[in-house]
Amino acid sequence: MNGELTVGERLVRGNPGEQIFAFAAKIYPICRSITGDGVRKTLRAIRSHIDLDIHEVPTGTEVFDWIVPPEWNVREAYIRDQRGRKIVDFADSNLHVMSYSIPVHRWISLAELKQHVYTLPDQPDLTPYRTSYYAENWAFCMPHRLLESLSDGRYEVVIDSDLSSGSLSYGEYLHKGETDEEFLLSAHICHPSLANDNCSGVALLTHLAKCMTGLRTRYSYRFLFAPGTIGAITWLARNEGQVKHIKHGLVVSMVGDGGGPTYKKSRRGDAEIDRVLAHILRHCGLKPTILDFSPYGYDERQYCSPGFNLPVGLFQRSQFGQIPQYHTSADNLDLIAPDHLAKSYRIIAETIDILENDIVYRNTNPKCEPQLGRRGLYGAIGGDKDAAGANMAMLWILNLSDGRNSLFDIAERADLPFALVRKTAQLLHRNGLLARRDDEKPRTT
Amino acid sequence: MNGELTVGERLVRGNPGEQIFAFAAKIYPICRSITGDGVRKTLRAIRSHIDLDIHEVPTGTEVFDWIVPPEWNVREAYIRDQRGRKIVDFADSNLHVMSYSIPVHRWISLAELKQHVYTLPDQPDLTPYRTSYYAENWAFCMPHRLLESLSDGRYEVVIDSDLSSGSLSYGEYLHKGETDEEFLLSAHICHPSLANDNCSGVALLTHLAKCMTGLRTRYSYRFLFAPGTIGAITWLARNEGQVKHIKHGLVVSMVGDGGGPTYKKSRRGDAEIDRVLAHILRHCGLKPTILDFSPYGYDERQYCSPGFNLPVGLFQRSQFGQIPQYHTSADNLDLIAPDHLAKSYRIIAETIDILENDIVYRNTNPKCEPQLGRRGLYGAIGGDKDAAGANMAMLWILNLSDGRNSLFDIAERADLPFALVRKTAQLLHRNGLLARRDDEKPRTT
Amino acid sequence: MNGELTVGERLVRGNPGEQIFAFAAKIYPICRSITGDGVRKTLRAIRSHIDLDIHEVPTGTEVFDWIVPPEWNVREAYIRDQRGRKIVDFADSNLHVMSYSIPVHRWISLAELKQHVYTLPDQPDLTPYRTSYYAENWAFCMPHRLLESLSDGRYEVVIDSDLSSGSLSYGEYLHKGETDEEFLLSAHICHPSLANDNCSGVALLTHLAKCMTGLRTRYSYRFLFAPGTIGAITWLARNEGQVKHIKHGLVVSMVGDGGGPTYKKSRRGDAEIDRVLAHILRHCGLKPTILDFSPYGYDERQYCSPGFNLPVGLFQRSQFGQIPQYHTSADNLDLIAPDHLAKSYRIIAETIDILENDIVYRNTNPKCEPQLGRRGLYGAIGGDKDAAGANMAMLWILNLSDGRNSLFDIAERADLPFALVRKTAQLLHRNGLLARRDDEKPRTT
Repeated sequence: MNGELTVGERLVRGNPGEQIFAFAAKIYPICRSITGDGVRKTLRAIRSHIDLDIHEVPTGTEVFDWIVPPEWNVREAYIRDQRGRKIVDFADSNLHVMSYSIPVHRWISLAELKQHVYTLPDQPDLTPYRTSYYAENWAFCMPHRLLESLSDGRYEVVIDSDLSSGSLSYGEYLHKGETDEEFLLSAHICHPSLANDNCSGVALLTHLAKCMTGLRTRYSYRFLFAPGTIGAITWLARNEGQVKHIKHGLVVSMVGDGGGPTYKKSRRGDAEIDRVLAHILRHCGLKPTILDFSPYGYDERQYCSPGFNLPVGLFQRSQFGQIPQYHTSADNLDLIAPDHLAKSYRIIAETIDILENDIVYRNTNPKCEPQLGRRGLYGAIGGDKDAAGANMAMLWILNLSDGRNSLFDIAERADLPFALVRKTAQLLHRNGLLARRDDEKPRTT
Repeated sequence: MNGELTVGERLVRGNPGEQIFAFAAKIYPICRSITGDGVRKTLRAIRSHIDLDIHEVPTGTEVFDWIVPPEWNVREAYIRDQRGRKIVDFADSNLHVMSYSIPVHRWISLAELKQHVYTLPDQPDLTPYRTSYYAENWAFCMPHRLLESLSDGRYEVVIDSDLSSGSLSYGEYLHKGETDEEFLLSAHICHPSLANDNCSGVALLTHLAKCMTGLRTRYSYRFLFAPGTIGAITWLARNEGQVKHIKHGLVVSMVGDGGGPTYKKSRRGDAEIDRVLAHILRHCGLKPTILDFSPYGYDERQYCSPGFNLPVGLFQRSQFGQIPQYHTSADNLDLIAPDHLAKSYRIIAETIDILENDIVYRNTNPKCEPQLGRRGLYGAIGGDKDAAGANMAMLWILNLSDGRNSLFDIAERADLPFALVRKTAQLLHRNGLLARRDDEKPRTT
Repeated sequence: MNGELTVGERLVRGNPGEQIFAFAAKIYPICRSITGDGVRKTLRAIRSHIDLDIHEVPTGTEVFDWIVPPEWNVREAYIRDQRGRKIVDFADSNLHVMSYSIPVHRWISLAELKQHVYTLPDQPDLTPYRTSYYAENWAFCMPHRLLESLSDGRYEVVIDSDLSSGSLSYGEYLHKGETDEEFLLSAHICHPSLANDNCSGVALLTHLAKCMTGLRTRYSYRFLFAPGTIGAITWLARNEGQVKHIKHGLVVSMVGDGGGPTYKKSRRGDAEIDRVLAHILRHCGLKPTILDFSPYGYDERQYCSPGFNLPVGLFQRSQFGQIPQYHTSADNLDLIAPDHLAKSYRIIAETIDILENDIVYRNTNPKCEPQLGRRGLYGAIGGDKDAAGANMAMLWILNLSDGRNSLFDIAERADLPFALVRKTAQLLHRNGLLARRDDEKPRTT
């Protein structure tokens, strides 16, 4: 173990920001929804990096209180005016069509058209993102300024969509560790051309899974790429007996912008994942926001429903709904950047590093301090006002390693970065001043 | 239950502020003390509204460490100067005579008179309120300016009072609910012409008891109108075996001014009444003060003595002793107003509403969220930034209804008004998404 | 007990500040280290006041992970220039020689000399205090300005020191109380001419032990005067079976300056000593600092090591390392003053007073308040706005004396000074309103 890199250190080698950005950019143009060929295309893109299992769940399958809906696909869609000019075209941006719009082909008045158009009057140049999965309807989305510019007259509306029996697709990848205990990492894949929400999360987790290949880990890591809500519900319904293995979990979304970071705690509020993320964000050099659990958000809603109550939190940069680009055409590739993606990635790698290395040591000389100086571990010249700082991690670890505190517990009480505590503990362990708790299996990298 | 008014909603119908004020004004002129005909007259006035039981406890009765004192009545009292002019007259204000003054009829010097006069030098135009229940003495109270204006000479002092064997009077009214569990509402009736302290409290509770007549409630409501300290002690001594039924309680005093509101917690500090009042006051739109228990105040001192330790708090607008009018002649009808009384009344009605309706539901679909949209319960158009707010109560209730959280627990954790949580829960219940806990008897209005 | 002085009151009689200062000044010039004749001379000076047991532990004795080092003594030491002028001389200040310097007598260049000189560039007129107990080395300490003024050339360096087999000396004094439960008071005696750190602590505890002689106390008081770290470790190793008697403890250092006061909690964080010091400091009229435990500081590091975890905190005025004079020649007799020493002494006397008198009483009339007025215990005239304050201690004691709260618990919840609570409880006890808990042995003064 001495001198070897930890799991977390191995994960961050290379140039993760550029690679994550490139993959996000690659899947950005695809038209996704909660079902359909865009989802499959996205999953196949992920599979080009990792050995992803792609599951297809037929329309009509009952999953708890829900039913897998018909599959939706769009061939083309546009609005044309009387002079034949296309006002908006699905080919330009898949945001122009409300997701799950039923087929339509009619000439209608401007007044009627306005009944089927969503805009953002406060952000008149942006196109909103809208869905109507479970209420049969059709609509277009466009900039408010464009709608305002339309003159009276009749318009041809065409949505050549398909809502028919098919299946819901999701992808799953399991990195097997030394134990059955799992860390769940989940990203929704149902949003169309929105870069931050959630091409960023899909790309980050794909890269993480890829980097994890071949690493020895204590935990098993389950990566889930599924449509929001119905996808997580479907997965939970099909894996009800397995969720007991989930010891930690993160929903990952909107991780490419420069805001936050933001962590929303699990419903439990004091799960280890909650404590670890709070610790990392406190030491991350940015201005983090730690939120208590609330039942609104992403798929942590399902993982934290009372019948499961899993220790799964939500990691984001900016908080959903809190930036003006949210759910608009401004959530494009300009909103995300390799540096931000890399920072988000490092935070998750550090989370993994803490959980993998959170050992309980026992001080082998619990009565009084051991003589560190004799072992060359301590500033040799006493009386120096400044020597104290450098030795604090050693003193804290020795003082608290009474068999009840893990390294993470110590890092929290001492308010020291975990990595410093881990490295110092390894030094003390090598010097025989710490022993592993007998009843604990070794956790190695 | 659907569409029916709750207990709290029924209680606030009509024009409570005006009615409470009118009754406070009616009993304001009466000379009350801890015993005597003024107390009886006040109790009879209450009995003209509700079916009050009036109890008489003879002088000399032992009540715990105390003995019911002689009964005190005053026929007339005044100070007259040598020219026959009355300086102060009990007929003008019963505050002019210290309560429980022994009889006196003498001519005395100004110097000696000053030994028997209380004034407020810092508030020279006001007459203070003073008592000497258990130390034999006599005194007058008057404005400091008036005392200063008196010239040397001799003065005739007359207090034609009576301190003799009689009884202590108190009134009690029980509204019977579906259970034996009681909510105690207690107001002291021993203060003479002080409008806020406590004609306001007596009138508010009288109106509440009147409005409660005929309502079906879960709890039984015990209204106690008794002299401060000795009255509460007497009641506790005579009802020692019954107090175990008291699940919640409020002492109500000084509820007619525009200050506060103020809530002083019970000795327990975390009783349900403490949590409920804190919740209501936090959402009441005024600037509330929540005080920890202290053993100084009104009759919560007795209810919260260590041998009883009942969950009884103190509800007031301004805190006792914290306004300049406190215990002076300025605590008159100008200090109280129908609007303030109505607001105080509504706060107590809301307290009752929460306690009556604090049900524990169970989410019937605990695994993942139920599909609200299918039931028409959810904003049908996804992606709208603002739809979230309206649905939060539903999501919180479903998430927390795991059998351990009551509606009030949910309102607290979600920081939502209880009424919204209650109404939303009823909606979910009607839709089959919530069930009552099996072991719980229904609580209806 | 009535009218008798408490232990704490007896301890503060006389003129403690002047006496403590005089003794601190007497031992200030002695050259101390962790061993040697200076330590012995200091212990003999203490023994001139109290019946101190002086222990000698031979060089080479194993104490837990440590070994008692050789004994160090210095006959003379200086630096002389080519013209025979002494640059620094141990005879002027024992700070000029790094503690535990090995013998040396050589002529060396200025460049080489600088390798063996410590200065404080930011405090150029002060001489630092430095030690090298366990790494063989030699060095001088001097003002930076003096070092800068030295011209090139050769210098004669002489340290006529002795590092040879001998012993480590420490002193111990036990004041026997009525019980075996101990209060440990510990001061380090290893610092040379530093007045605050720790002539002040040694002198304070010597005075305290002297004043305690002949007093009847509940606790036994163990005073320990030992070199820092190795002395505390040696004492713990030789008294391992006895430490279970230690119920409270304080390390006392730097108690003569005008800063703070500062209290660093024991590792437990909620020991009675931690709560009591926090209470006293909150009411002491100065601006206290309460620190959580950390494993850096004085001998609380050893007492609070995980194998002992004793309830021992650290009491100081200014916090170590936080004042510019710390570990420099400016920590001289000008830094400490009789008034500050007296204040520190009173704080420790008050600590003892609380612990000696922290009785659990039981209210003999737990149901409702007892009638205090009848017993002359209560303001006889009701209605006075200001009477409340004076009676609060009585009301709090009666309300909380349910057998679960000690007087100190009551003082904390009521936020009243302990002395007021104690005196008031004695008054109530004399009046039969409080009884001692049956299962408790009397604690008398």
